[in-house]
Amino acid sequence: MTREEGVAGPTGGGEFALIRRILALRRVVPEALTVDAGDDCAVFAAAPLAVGNDLSVEGVHFRREWLSPAEIGFRAAGAALSDLAAMAAEPIAVLLALCLDEAADTEDALALARGVIDAAEAVGAGLAGGDIARGPMLALDVVAIGRCATPVRRGGALAGDRLWVTGRLGGAARAVRAWREGTEPTPAARAAFATPRPRVAEARWLAERGARALIDLSDGLSGDCAHLAGASGLEAALDATAIPVDTAAGAALEDALHGGEDYELLLAAPPGSIEDAAPAFHERFGVPLTAIGVVRAGSGVYLRGVDGRERPLPRGGFDHLGGMPA
Amino acid sequence: MTREEGVAGPTGGGEFALIRRILALRRVVPEALTVDAGDDCAVFAAAPLAVGNDLSVEGVHFRREWLSPAEIGFRAAGAALSDLAAMAAEPIAVLLALCLDEAADTEDALALARGVIDAAEAVGAGLAGGDIARGPMLALDVVAIGRCATPVRRGGALAGDRLWVTGRLGGAARAVRAWREGTEPTPAARAAFATPRPRVAEARWLAERGARALIDLSDGLSGDCAHLAGASGLEAALDATAIPVDTAAGAALEDALHGGEDYELLLAAPPGSIEDAAPAFHERFGVPLTAIGVVRAGSGVYLRGVDGRERPLPRGGFDHLGGMPA
Repeated sequence: MTREEGVAGPTGGGEFALIRRILALRRVVPEALTVDAGDDCAVFAAAPLAVGNDLSVEGVHFRREWLSPAEIGFRAAGAALSDLAAMAAEPIAVLLALCLDEAADTEDALALARGVIDAAEAVGAGLAGGDIARGPMLALDVVAIGRCATPVRRGGALAGDRLWVTGRLGGAARAVRAWREGTEPTPAARAAFATPRPRVAEARWLAERGARALIDLSDGLSGDCAHLAGASGLEAALDATAIPVDTAAGAALEDALHGGEDYELLLAAPPGSIEDAAPAFHERFGVPLTAIGVVRAGSGVYLRGVDGRERPLPRGGFDHLGGMPA
Repeated sequence: MTREEGVAGPTGGGEFALIRRILALRRVVPEALTVDAGDDCAVFAAAPLAVGNDLSVEGVHFRREWLSPAEIGFRAAGAALSDLAAMAAEPIAVLLALCLDEAADTEDALALARGVIDAAEAVGAGLAGGDIARGPMLALDVVAIGRCATPVRRGGALAGDRLWVTGRLGGAARAVRAWREGTEPTPAARAAFATPRPRVAEARWLAERGARALIDLSDGLSGDCAHLAGASGLEAALDATAIPVDTAAGAALEDALHGGEDYELLLAAPPGSIEDAAPAFHERFGVPLTAIGVVRAGSGVYLRGVDGRERPLPRGGFDHLGGMPA
């Protein structure tokens, strides 16, 4: 489309020039793409395709005082790509809708896009298009698109299945707590919030070994456990002593139970299916795979405390309609 | 997911309750959907799939003084679905990212979503998911997904092809001009802006009859003609006397040339391929199909005026990075 530059006009074509500069940041063109960015839509030859989107708004999901523009982009794309992991899908591409406020200059826009591209390319996907506008706030909607031959749904658990989580929980919430307290989070906590790694390869590995219900921990363990158990028509019982709290990041049990946006996975698998594979998981992916409870007939989520007694677990996950608490 | 209501928590679950109310507004579940809204992603069995997104931001793309919430939703989805029309794709589904500001209550959110659903269902698609957050502004990112066996790209024109447009142009720009002048637009102008009809069936009909380059008029004829000609490596020459100005909406030639967001189609087709079909197009779709010029070797866009002289056509389309002029 270089010829269009010959057409001068009062609006200067800033939008299209920026789009060209963003596309030039790509190191890979997404596979299975028969029509690339630059046309009205991207066209994908693969099927079945999983498509999800994740909206990140300044002041709700992040603050510019906390993160660099590249981290804001990485985090927004990581959240969207985590939705693909939660289906055991294989990422192909992302689309980016970017709303830039007056404080965001061209370099910021390029850094935001670079973060999105980095997060996508880290899991084998690539930027395939999007839309940009100037507006009253900074916001990103990232659309994640992936091959999904055998979706693993959140509602696939059966009574008696064990519940497992990947990685360690609460680091992202610990970082937010530090910032709100006016302190700097530890590097480990900061990284958990700023550059979440969607568990894409992990999800497919687990699906091959028997995971039959899967969800990513975007709203917090208490909330997402309620989603998985509820969609499966079951009740979840968690063991507080088993929760893998991200103590290296300074997280407490409350951070691990209710802090959203760790983007680890929660899964249900038949007893005996995954136990033997947990050490291999740790070795392969560098993070633990931990049994934290069971699903059974009933409804709701219960937590067995250190005293051995089960109590209903209140849902403390983040409500994106409630805004970010001060 | 009704069981999750048994899990009380400090955040109240307002986000999930609203999502359930929005999904209850659907009259159809999208076809080719193997995993519906309510899981982490929607999964589509169809291939190839075209995927595009369109971002609508208050103060940039619309104003609440001008449109009802349902119209804002309809217009945002119409714009996204028009990107599918521009590929000659067949819409299947939309995803909605909705950022609600403090002025938007639950009824507004439901009306916005109803507008999106109405626009989608009018062209055979359905709502298949999305994301909602409270933020400092009202914004919608609509992702449009459609079957696209034979994409018609914007860069497919060959020298000597004739250029055609569907419908009448300038009505949406005329409405914006009226609002800016402090007057009410005519019903025809208002409808052109508020409830654009993506030319989905028209695009497929035209593709079957020889259209080999296609773009929708979202940025304005002058800008989108530059996109089509530039992507094809050609120059466009338009005839001012041939442009189908939406005079019933009170539009002038300038509105038709530079006013964006009519969401009509611009296409290139070999001479002789479509001429005979134009009356049938008008009869079938209720809007004219008009030859407005040619593409030829060269670059840029030229307009032949009533005096018979050709002059470069300055690009006056809307630059979404420039913000909405006051």
